[in-house]
Amino acid sequence: MTVRSAQAHWEGSLTEGEGEVEFLNSNLGSVPVDWRSRSAETEGKTSPEELIAAAHSACFSMALSAALSKNGTPPAAIDTRADVTFVVGEGITGIVLTVRASVPGLSAEDFATFAQGAKTGCPVSAALTGTRIELDAALV
Amino acid sequence: MTVRSAQAHWEGSLTEGEGEVEFLNSNLGSVPVDWRSRSAETEGKTSPEELIAAAHSACFSMALSAALSKNGTPPAAIDTRADVTFVVGEGITGIVLTVRASVPGLSAEDFATFAQGAKTGCPVSAALTGTRIELDAALV
Repeated sequence: MTVRSAQAHWEGSLTEGEGEVEFLNSNLGSVPVDWRSRSAETEGKTSPEELIAAAHSACFSMALSAALSKNGTPPAAIDTRADVTFVVGEGITGIVLTVRASVPGLSAEDFATFAQGAKTGCPVSAALTGTRIELDAALV
Repeated sequence: MTVRSAQAHWEGSLTEGEGEVEFLNSNLGSVPVDWRSRSAETEGKTSPEELIAAAHSACFSMALSAALSKNGTPPAAIDTRADVTFVVGEGITGIVLTVRASVPGLSAEDFATFAQGAKTGCPVSAALTGTRIELDAALV
């Protein structure tokens, strides 16, 4: 069992206030966040949605690697992009995972099956059951 | 509507391979990830769980700020820590949000109500319905 942590500090109202997020385990340090960077232009700041995208793309890639390795066909490379859509008043309305992978010795059909399995089974997907996840998967 | 994105690159098997995550909107750049940093010692690397913790602590703080502002009692400061527990073979088994806030003119009872509302209603909580979320909230 591992515990991973972060801490947010916020001052003021949602629209006029500002905050920062501190990563407590890695060496990412602290990064500013505010409402404008979330709902309009990012201006170099992060947002909950960008952080979810990072978590999901990494988790999906690890789960896919695990499944491919167990099959005896470890990936040469997996590239996964996560796009997280946020609508003010509605929330996180969907996540699109786009994966391109190089897997020696694997058919496109089998790859599609493993990718679907990782989409459903990766721990972050399993936690994010409150939003819609779409997958675009192909070998390169 | 906004779209926020990140991209993960992974090479090799789950346990022997390694990857990195690139943030595509903020200026956080790229950060290494691997299985060891997720399931054992972090060694300066991030993990999906630390990134979820960062997303959740920021989102919860914003939602709480929004509710308090709407009530006419904007917060002087909100500090929210998120601890995300990961169990190999089970996944993300729970998230604990610990919030301490300074809110001029608000009773402890009303604060507890707003904090519970943010726990349920913040967009990241609403997406993370596949795991258990606990809240420890108090005024300081």
